[in-house]
Parts: sequence; C-alpha cells; structure tokens
Amino acid sequence: MNPHDDDQRKKDAEKHYRTALAWHEACRGKQELFPRCPVRGNADFSVWYTPGVAEPCRRIHEDPSAAYTYTNVGNTIAVLSDGSRVLGLGDIGPAAGLPVMEGKGLIFKMYGGVDAFALCVDAPTTEAMVAVGRAIAPSFGGINLEDIASPRCFDILDRLRAELDIPVWHDDRQGTATVIFAGLMNAARVTGRRLEDCRFVLLGAGAANLAVAELLAFTGVDPGRIVFVDRPGILGPGHGPYHPLRDGLVARSNGERRAGGLPEALDGADVLVALAAPGPGIITEAHVRRMAKDPIVFACANPVPEIWPWEAASAGAAVVATGRGDFPNQVNNALIFPGVFRGALDVRARTISQGMCVAAAEALAAVAATAGLRPDRLLPAIDDPAVAPAVATAVGLAAIGEGLARLHLTREEIFEKATFFCNRSAKIMTMMLREGLMPELPGAPD
Amino acid sequence: MNPHDDDQRKKDAEKHYRTALAWHEACRGKQELFPRCPVRGNADFSVWYTPGVAEPCRRIHEDPSAAYTYTNVGNTIAVLSDGSRVLGLGDIGPAAGLPVMEGKGLIFKMYGGVDAFALCVDAPTTEAMVAVGRAIAPSFGGINLEDIASPRCFDILDRLRAELDIPVWHDDRQGTATVIFAGLMNAARVTGRRLEDCRFVLLGAGAANLAVAELLAFTGVDPGRIVFVDRPGILGPGHGPYHPLRDGLVARSNGERRAGGLPEALDGADVLVALAAPGPGIITEAHVRRMAKDPIVFACANPVPEIWPWEAASAGAAVVATGRGDFPNQVNNALIFPGVFRGALDVRARTISQGMCVAAAEALAAVAATAGLRPDRLLPAIDDPAVAPAVATAVGLAAIGEGLARLHLTREEIFEKATFFCNRSAKIMTMMLREGLMPELPGAPD
Repeated sequence: MNPHDDDQRKKDAEKHYRTALAWHEACRGKQELFPRCPVRGNADFSVWYTPGVAEPCRRIHEDPSAAYTYTNVGNTIAVLSDGSRVLGLGDIGPAAGLPVMEGKGLIFKMYGGVDAFALCVDAPTTEAMVAVGRAIAPSFGGINLEDIASPRCFDILDRLRAELDIPVWHDDRQGTATVIFAGLMNAARVTGRRLEDCRFVLLGAGAANLAVAELLAFTGVDPGRIVFVDRPGILGPGHGPYHPLRDGLVARSNGERRAGGLPEALDGADVLVALAAPGPGIITEAHVRRMAKDPIVFACANPVPEIWPWEAASAGAAVVATGRGDFPNQVNNALIFPGVFRGALDVRARTISQGMCVAAAEALAAVAATAGLRPDRLLPAIDDPAVAPAVATAVGLAAIGEGLARLHLTREEIFEKATFFCNRSAKIMTMMLREGLMPELPGAPD
Repeated sequence: MNPHDDDQRKKDAEKHYRTALAWHEACRGKQELFPRCPVRGNADFSVWYTPGVAEPCRRIHEDPSAAYTYTNVGNTIAVLSDGSRVLGLGDIGPAAGLPVMEGKGLIFKMYGGVDAFALCVDAPTTEAMVAVGRAIAPSFGGINLEDIASPRCFDILDRLRAELDIPVWHDDRQGTATVIFAGLMNAARVTGRRLEDCRFVLLGAGAANLAVAELLAFTGVDPGRIVFVDRPGILGPGHGPYHPLRDGLVARSNGERRAGGLPEALDGADVLVALAAPGPGIITEAHVRRMAKDPIVFACANPVPEIWPWEAASAGAAVVATGRGDFPNQVNNALIFPGVFRGALDVRARTISQGMCVAAAEALAAVAATAGLRPDRLLPAIDDPAVAPAVATAVGLAAIGEGLARLHLTREEIFEKATFFCNRSAKIMTMMLREGLMPELPGAPD
C-alpha cells in the first residue's frame, strides 16, 4: 500500500489529532514558571523580595543595562502573536494560537535553553501590535514574532526593529529564509554550483520567500536572476501595489522580463524554492523537467509538499528538500531560531542583522558539511545537539563584529555559555521524567 | 545595644543590600520557563508542535474555554506593573521594577503553585495600561496588578475588571486590605469586640486603606464610624476632588464630623490602621493614649512601622501588628495573594469579588484561630503550608456560590487541587537544590 494514499493519510492524521488532544489535556500547557534561584525557607524572600530586592531595582534605575545582571531578561524572549495566521489554520485568534506559541516556547527551551514566553495578544491592527511590542519590551531580551498575517507582519517587524534596542525577529520570515539559505548553500555545493550564478524561481511571494530573496540579494545574487511566481503567474510591474517590501523586490526581479506562469519561469532555472500551498500537484514533474540539468527543488509547504520528493527526483531533480521530518532534507525553522536567539542573548545583542542571519546559515550549513555532504543530507537533523551552540557562536560573533553586541565575549566563551544553557534543558527534562514530575501521557507515542 | 538604633540599622541595611546584589547577580533572574510536558525525543514535537498541535488550536477556536484544557492559561497569571510606584522607591520605571515583579512571581509559585509571569510594561497612562491589559488577556487566567501609582491604579483596576472575564486584582489594594481585614477580625476577637461596633481611624488614604474601608463597609461597618487621616489632617468634604473612589468614601466617612488631625481623630477610637509613611514617630505614644481602652494598632509602613510595637504597647495598645517579619503579627500580602489566585484559577473564576475577598480573609483568620488566638498571634506565619490551600478553597467556593466560576468543584476537590500545586512547587525546589541545578549563592544567608 502506498503510505501516501489519501485514505491512509486521512486516517493517520485523525489518529495523530486524537493523540494530540489527549496529550495536551493530560499536561494542560507545555511550559511553567520554575524558580531559578534557591529558596531554602521564608527568610530567603527578604533577599529575593522586600527589603533586599530594592537594591537591584535601584541599580537598574541608574543603569538600565543592569537588568541583564539582576533579572531574567537576558534569557527571556516573547513569542508574540496575534493568532492571525496560525500554521495552516488561518486567522483563528490569539487564544486558539496559544498551543502553537507554547509549543514554540518548548522548542526554544529544549533546543536553545531560551525562556520563551507564549504571548498571544488581542491586537488586530499594525498600530495595536506595535504598541504591544513597544510596551512589553522592558521585560524581554528579545521578541520572536510568529504567525501574523501578511502584509501587516512586514510593518510590525520593521517598526519594532527600528524602535526597540532588543532583537525582534519574525520567524516565518527571517527564520524560514535563513534555514532555506543554509540548505541552498549546501545544495549548490553538492551540485557543483555557485549561488551567484544560479537562476532562481520563488513560488509563493509571501513573507518567507521575500526574505529568501532579500538574503540572496544581500549575499551578492543579482536580484534580476530571481523570478517570483504567485497565483497570478510571474510577478512583474503590472502586479500590485501590495506592500512596498514586495513591490520593491518584484521591481528588481526578473531581469529577463519573462511573462507567463510557473512553466515559463522554470525554463532553465537552477533553483526552485516553493513556499506556496500544500500539494501534491502544485508542482508537477513536467514543471521540474523544464529546469536546468540537476536542478535544486525545495518544496516546503506543510503538511504535504508542493510535489512529492520521488516525483521531483524522477523528473531529474538532483536534490529535493521539504518541510517534513519523514523525508530527507527537512527544512525546519527549529534548526535555526533556538541558536539564533541563544547567540543574540548571550552577547546581549541590540538587533538581529542580515549579517547575523547569514552567519547563522553558514554555521548551520557547516554542521551538515562536517558530517559529510550528500544530496540527501543537506541539513543536520533537528535534534543534532551540535546545531544550536554552533549557530549561537556564529551569531554572537557576527553581532560583536558588527558592533551590535552589548557584551564582548570570545568564541570559546559564547560556545560555552550556549552549551551550558542547552545542556541544562536536557538535564532538567531528564530529572523531571525520572522524578515522576511530568504527567503520564495516555497511549504510546505515535 | 538597641538593635534598632539608626547606625546599626543603616549597617544592617547595607549588608543586606550587598547580599541582595550578589545573590541576584548569581542567579540572573528568579524564574525560568520549564517544560511542563514530556519531551522524550524530537518525535514528541510532532504532537506538541506541528502537525499535532493544530487540533487543540481548532478546539479552542470553536470554544474559547477549551484554552483551560489545552494550554497553561488555567495556571498562569501576569504580574503586571508599569513600575510607577515600586516598593518605597517611587516611579523607577518598568525595567527597574522587574526584580520586584520576578520576586512576586517566585512567591506566587512557592506558596500558591501559580505560574506568575513578571510583565513590566512601558505604558505610562491609564489608557495605555488598560490597552496592554486588554491585549494580553488571552494568554492569562488572571492579572495581578502591582506597584502602579495612585490615583490611576484605581481606574486601571476598575476598567480591566469591567472589561475582562478573568480575575484582575490589584494586590496593593485588595491584597493588603484582605490581610488587614483578616487581622482585624482576629484582633476584635482577642479584645472582645465586634467590628461593627468599633470606631476606626485609617491613617493614610491611599489605595490600600481605601480598600480596607470598602471591605469594612461591605461587611456591615457603618462608614460613618471610619475617619480618614492623611497629610492635611482629618479628611472631609473640604478636601479633594482627588478621585471619585476616595471622594465618595470620604464623603460617607466621619459621621461625627470631627475636625483636626490624628490626635482629634483618635480620641476614643478602637482601631488605628496606619498605611502611611515609614516611622518611627509618625504615630506617638501620646496618640495611642487617646484611643479607647485596649486599642488595636496596625502600623504597616515598611521598612519601619509608623510606631515601634513596644511603644504602642507601652501606651496601652492591646494588640499591635506591623509589616515586619521580625515582630509578632506580620501583616503581609504573601499570606493572601497566592491562595486567592490559586482558588480563583482552580475554579476558573471570571473575577475576584468582594465576597471572595471576605471569604479569603475569613479563611486566613480561621487558620490562625486553629492554632489558638493570642494578642501576638493574630495571623499565621507566612510559610504556614496550611494557609494557601485553606484560602484557595474558601475563594473557590465563594466564586461558585456567587455564580462567578466556570468550573464547579466540591470543597474537597478544590482543596486537593490547591494542595497538589502547592506541594509540587516544594518538590521541584527540593529536587533542583539536590541535583545542583540552582546557582551557588555567595556568602551565607543573612
């Protein structure tokens, strides 16, 4: 039986969803606030609370950067969402977005040792969201924006980045683009290309692919070698105005002024990055056959890629990446965001620059290369413990190099700090499981 | 040597502050986000995150109350402050308020098993603060307002209470008043009084004493038997307008239309509750001698009460309470807020009513009475583990009785749930200390 036939897929999904409900109900949340300081008895509160606490307050009042010394801001970020574009579910609102943001927080903690608080807010406009981000900033060392509808997510990110002196990152934009860029670097290597010589087709001109184009341009790819394809076909001056970010990128793209749809765009292209809509059948074998020899196909829609990997391969693709963990070359943001924030926090960065994204991507690509590059091993596994410390170190050093860090550490110091935090999460989980402090989960794991 | 002489006090304070800085620096924060669900390996994320997580999201989208089943909102509150009136430090701003709010969160966790996130926000107006409270509400089962300047704290509380269907509580107002009310109930018992027959002087007409007056009136004390004294002397129709809340209470107070200052107010009074300014010497022995026989004196300013307890006693006070843990009868909000929120969360209450505050005070007074009431044992010790479950049970039952609970549990069920959460915190702390997962603290505890 083909494990990917529709009936079986539906049955699998239903079983998975039943498990998800049961597990979520058993735990009632994925994160809790633990003490981070010893409390041996009530007397300790005279230091942690009044009267002793007044002195750290005074020091921070004198010098705001002392908050990194005396509070948890140096390891705490917000996973901030309005719930307006959650996973494939659309605009389900802040409360319904909570399970996703808590899950994201859990990944931040387990893979990066970052305390990431799930903050789903009722802030349905750009202005409201910017106001919330601005207001909460004093309590956080960074903000991870998540699952916010386009195009307002562009302005929310750009305005908060401009206004705040802590890292603000939109994971659906920068995170996805950074992982894809890492994958593309290694895909170019295994197919004997240089990225700046490639022709690119980006299918789906949403937040993530626009950020892919920005990163490619930042690293020296001529934007004219990029063609955007969305529902109306190849995007050009005739489309829009949509949002200045997209309009500007589209205006610089498609140097050959091609017209038509995906087939026309793909003629002779080296790279196809699809962040479009769940497949299969969004991309066909015929589409792939129009590409250059040994083409690179990243079909990243979830839960089903725009084209099945074996179809892409049979049409000649030399490397295929998808968003799924059950196929080779999983493109997943969890490879990058824990390490990026880990590094940014460890050097108390003021922002996350494009240069820091590129450094993160290079570090991620290098971890995969260390294990030996193969067409089916472009990226490390999500749970490779080498990833987050390597990414964090690269990000921290890049921040220092660009003058964006408050704290200047050596490579070894950043690596040690990152490793400490990542290991600590694993230790705590082991201990909680061993001591019976975790709820029992109904049924066996899927 | 008198341990309370000024030089010694100054030296003690300096040592305490050095310790506080060193301990805070060693821990860099008092709370962290731990996983609350098992993660045995990367595969578990297919349930905690995508694709499994979509199903709990859908359920909450269909029925918002399902958030209590599938997320941590049912055990999570915000400790929300703008840092505009922090402890005795004044308007030091949100970042400098963080050590206090984190400390408050620590007490919530250790004594009530409540996950209380320290959220210090840059929201310097009533409108801004209400907007923040409204926006963040979907992520929380309750909001504890803290250290916000008067009089805007009144409107912020009242508006958020009116707009939100989760408990919103201002601990400096309702919390302080509820503990004082519990103490007054037992003080009346040990001095053979009924509160409704007493004459009250409230020194300091700030948020807390106004709330004391509200609670007294709610439980049947004629407001005319209350006299407010503040810096200008006895408050009457000639003072103000300040804020409708205070103006209204003052208008109904002082039925005898007394004029003058604290001495005139105190003539023949049974009860003095001072929440005014650090002493000593704000209240003198001569003041206390003007009161009725065996008077009740609560001198609650920190770090030094308005009158030393031994001075009040030598002037005839039958019972004396202060805010300090090194004297008998400590009036401390930590006796009440962990249990109040524990109970409110356990029955998923929509608000915290005056009736729930009275139930909490009665439960707290009863815990002290169980141990045998004495003039120097009006209230339980802060770390008495019987307090929070007893308060929580009373609060939960009151919420159910008033139709304010989403979840109807029996007395035994609420007690068990509250006990589980409180014990869990102690277990986690023990384990963290035993496993060496807490930082070493420099020096010995003070």
